[in-house]
Amino acid sequence: MQKVLIILGSKSDLDICKPITNVLNDFGVQSEFHVSSAHRNPDNTAKLAKDAETNGFGVIIACAGMAAHLPGVVASHSTLPVIGVPINSGALAGIDALYSIAQMPPGVPVACVAVNGVKNAALLAIQIIALSNPELKEKYRLYKESLKG
Amino acid sequence: MQKVLIILGSKSDLDICKPITNVLNDFGVQSEFHVSSAHRNPDNTAKLAKDAETNGFGVIIACAGMAAHLPGVVASHSTLPVIGVPINSGALAGIDALYSIAQMPPGVPVACVAVNGVKNAALLAIQIIALSNPELKEKYRLYKESLKG
Amino acid sequence: MQKVLIILGSKSDLDICKPITNVLNDFGVQSEFHVSSAHRNPDNTAKLAKDAETNGFGVIIACAGMAAHLPGVVASHSTLPVIGVPINSGALAGIDALYSIAQMPPGVPVACVAVNGVKNAALLAIQIIALSNPELKEKYRLYKESLKG
Amino acid sequence: MQKVLIILGSKSDLDICKPITNVLNDFGVQSEFHVSSAHRNPDNTAKLAKDAETNGFGVIIACAGMAAHLPGVVASHSTLPVIGVPINSGALAGIDALYSIAQMPPGVPVACVAVNGVKNAALLAIQIIALSNPELKEKYRLYKESLKG
Amino acid sequence: MQKVLIILGSKSDLDICKPITNVLNDFGVQSEFHVSSAHRNPDNTAKLAKDAETNGFGVIIACAGMAAHLPGVVASHSTLPVIGVPINSGALAGIDALYSIAQMPPGVPVACVAVNGVKNAALLAIQIIALSNPELKEKYRLYKESLKG
Amino acid sequence: MQKVLIILGSKSDLDICKPITNVLNDFGVQSEFHVSSAHRNPDNTAKLAKDAETNGFGVIIACAGMAAHLPGVVASHSTLPVIGVPINSGALAGIDALYSIAQMPPGVPVACVAVNGVKNAALLAIQIIALSNPELKEKYRLYKESLKG
Amino acid sequence: MQKVLIILGSKSDLDICKPITNVLNDFGVQSEFHVSSAHRNPDNTAKLAKDAETNGFGVIIACAGMAAHLPGVVASHSTLPVIGVPINSGALAGIDALYSIAQMPPGVPVACVAVNGVKNAALLAIQIIALSNPELKEKYRLYKESLKG
Amino acid sequence: MQKVLIILGSKSDLDICKPITNVLNDFGVQSEFHVSSAHRNPDNTAKLAKDAETNGFGVIIACAGMAAHLPGVVASHSTLPVIGVPINSGALAGIDALYSIAQMPPGVPVACVAVNGVKNAALLAIQIIALSNPELKEKYRLYKESLKG
Repeated sequence: MQKVLIILGSKSDLDICKPITNVLNDFGVQSEFHVSSAHRNPDNTAKLAKDAETNGFGVIIACAGMAAHLPGVVASHSTLPVIGVPINSGALAGIDALYSIAQMPPGVPVACVAVNGVKNAALLAIQIIALSNPELKEKYRLYKESLKG
Repeated sequence: MQKVLIILGSKSDLDICKPITNVLNDFGVQSEFHVSSAHRNPDNTAKLAKDAETNGFGVIIACAGMAAHLPGVVASHSTLPVIGVPINSGALAGIDALYSIAQMPPGVPVACVAVNGVKNAALLAIQIIALSNPELKEKYRLYKESLKG
Repeated sequence: MQKVLIILGSKSDLDICKPITNVLNDFGVQSEFHVSSAHRNPDNTAKLAKDAETNGFGVIIACAGMAAHLPGVVASHSTLPVIGVPINSGALAGIDALYSIAQMPPGVPVACVAVNGVKNAALLAIQIIALSNPELKEKYRLYKESLKG
Repeated sequence: MQKVLIILGSKSDLDICKPITNVLNDFGVQSEFHVSSAHRNPDNTAKLAKDAETNGFGVIIACAGMAAHLPGVVASHSTLPVIGVPINSGALAGIDALYSIAQMPPGVPVACVAVNGVKNAALLAIQIIALSNPELKEKYRLYKESLKG
Repeated sequence: MQKVLIILGSKSDLDICKPITNVLNDFGVQSEFHVSSAHRNPDNTAKLAKDAETNGFGVIIACAGMAAHLPGVVASHSTLPVIGVPINSGALAGIDALYSIAQMPPGVPVACVAVNGVKNAALLAIQIIALSNPELKEKYRLYKESLKG
Repeated sequence: MQKVLIILGSKSDLDICKPITNVLNDFGVQSEFHVSSAHRNPDNTAKLAKDAETNGFGVIIACAGMAAHLPGVVASHSTLPVIGVPINSGALAGIDALYSIAQMPPGVPVACVAVNGVKNAALLAIQIIALSNPELKEKYRLYKESLKG
Repeated sequence: MQKVLIILGSKSDLDICKPITNVLNDFGVQSEFHVSSAHRNPDNTAKLAKDAETNGFGVIIACAGMAAHLPGVVASHSTLPVIGVPINSGALAGIDALYSIAQMPPGVPVACVAVNGVKNAALLAIQIIALSNPELKEKYRLYKESLKG
Repeated sequence: MQKVLIILGSKSDLDICKPITNVLNDFGVQSEFHVSSAHRNPDNTAKLAKDAETNGFGVIIACAGMAAHLPGVVASHSTLPVIGVPINSGALAGIDALYSIAQMPPGVPVACVAVNGVKNAALLAIQIIALSNPELKEKYRLYKESLKG
């Protein structure tokens, strides 16, 4: 089963992004967690993205606040689907990050979720990986059923 | 190979959404096109979503303007990944649709792209389907290469 | 006298929505309270809306935050007037919910009140029911008089 | 059957508001049409609102752009349900009117619809009047059915 | 010397509006303070505005939050210059009130100051009254000098 | 009778600002018209403001788009009441100018009117000058009466 | 004298960005013009930025619309001052680009100018280069003087 | 080596702006710190700007909240590059200041950084001064290297 690569733009978002790993673990999906800023460490970020497929990842989740270029930068270096999570930080409360992630130009898509929507980012990654994994698909179906509770 | 189900909330968005089918065709990905409003025809919309997996679809693309509930409604009835395209219509120029699609609550993810971002919606669907289809993956790699042109 | 059906999209909004029942009680209008997410439990939500008229309800009040599709989804399944209350939750402070509720497309109206405008939602429901109930109308007239205090 | 009182804040909004009368006519609901600014002619506006119930009106629809105080001013002078339509005019494209109409303070509700949402304003008025009019209710049910077309 | 009439839309804004009286007192300008909602007590509000000139007032300061119709309503009933202060209350943090006060339609002006700009509202009133009062003008000149501190 | 000084930040706003002079002329209020940018010609702008009172002006109207510092800069150099008109120009459609003019800090007030609210700027200036001019006051009363038409 | 490197994110912005070269030419400042998307051609964009200093450039001007990551990406690969120009394109009219460029995180600065502010981008570059070039400084002083015209 | 002139619009922003001096000190760049409001003390502010070059400054950093005219006013009186920092204060959380600083009209540029982006303001000043100072350039290169940490 393909793994999920999680990249954070800043150490300060670690707490808000913890649920991503937790949700993936609950579904038995393996993941790897990196802090690598698109701006402060662009070459390392590019390398993470370029090597992702070879390293067994099927989906990349990138989380960033403010100008939030990380998901777009990651998407520019990989053919894997990239999920972007706008983080609520700074004076504009995540609207800046939401626009920076959602408004990608034609040719390089990013899948944007809600501001601080870390749980949905993980679920979306699981839905994508489950397309070729019937067991995971069944787990997701049960999870979706449980939401009705 | 899994097909892509495309649902539009309104006939008036047909022109703006045409490129979705074109892009999918270019990549040899089969798709089906429906106009079914989440509000005016909720039962048909729900049925389309519920039957999507059985009918051989792997990804759903839902396009809507203004309140733009369609992608969220579709996502509530399916375990497939749903891509939402906010359409620029009405006085708020698509900001309303962008918020309505991006700000989904925890538990039911939607992958939001840019306002009128129909081309990226198709490319994202292709990236997702290509995860289990090496030939499509290679086509996407070549497409991505061609962007540098 | 027709009753008021109150639906909340999330348990977390219970406290903010309490005043709806209180106001209705003060006017002697009966109501019923449900938590049923449009996204996590769409079939139950649809059933609540479809059965509302038969079950003696005259007005539906639906409260939701963020993407806030609940009022529109409820309106798609009922011919009763639906009042939508945008709830202030998440990073966008209720502007997302305001747009998602107010910007309904032509054909399926929702009556939007202020962000967290739970009291006015109840008063609007009372005004509507009072149209065919002179006694309730008189109570409302006295209430309105008392506001001048 | 109760009639609908339609008030416009400005003659310049006549064209955009025409569909209100058309829709009401289609359903056989009688209406009366006035242009009376809340700011330029406050006493006439107040009188229209105060006399509305005595004159046989059951619902008031008030349309205004920019600061858009008309619906709130009308609501302050009547116990009837008031539907407010924000009109797209001026540099802010109706966002100013949307906020001015939706954000009413506790005690005096206004039912806000979409910017330029004139058709839904009429439909909402019909839903309200239909609560005590089975024949109109049946017409609305058929209309709603026809939307699925 | 003409007095300043201060009207608040809600008791809850008393604290934030206190500085208006303090500043006017510092300049020896007399004022009167009323709480009178444009929506909950429209006739009293209209009467305050209509009688203002006869009662010796030269300027009216009206403060309100959310839909903030008060300054416009007061202006509709008086030929005196009206200063509107948008108050930060509710989920939209005063942007709603700012738009409702600034975006007055042609024919009925309101002088809008900053959100919670109570001090500037008082200073503007003083500038206006000082036009025909050399002694007050001199006091203002000294105050302005003192700002350079 | 005191005159009105009108300053425009840019020649490109001449057409939109013409009505200011027209309205003042209609009321028999004398005015003078200058184009003087706060940024491109700060010393001339400062001089216009500093000399305004000595030159017989009672009110200053300053119009500017985009960053729109002109009204605030003028207010910093004069004790006269300053009316600021945000002009709709550039990509932000006047919201930038509205914020730049309305959000003045404590100590230096500017009276902000609507985006492109040139007519109200003139009327507000007339209201202010009329406070010490009974004849002008009567003209304004008749004008206000005529609005009811 | 150091040259200015101009990078555009998209060919479609060529017309709007022409004035940059014109202004630089008027001041006798040499420049070079490239179209290189941060997303479609990230490696070429990175190379342009990394080599800029060695190639004799002193300032980089990067122009982009929508998500507008280009200026930030360029800044991540160079120690030269980077000026970012948000371009008005797409449904959000440049607000998305403005936020994406202005809201850079601590450590990697970008100098943001107005939406479509191409002329000021060139002038800012000239001001910067003129710091160590008395002749250019004098030209700029004369230009600034000419603005008063 | 050229010094950096730092001007604050208000004493209340002293704490938030402290890091500017700290960062400049870390790089061995001399600076001077003034509080001088564009509105309350325009002549002093103009003098600071006009004398800046003669006094040995190469770059000016101006910080202000709300209407935030300070950077533009300073830029109008100097040919030096001016960096503007929008400060988060008041109800609009710095969006007003961001627009007031970024949206400067053609002819008088200001380099806008993020809301509260004081650290990047200092770094940008250093990048500019370093263009003609190889030792400082080398320090900046090392700093940039250290960000990858």
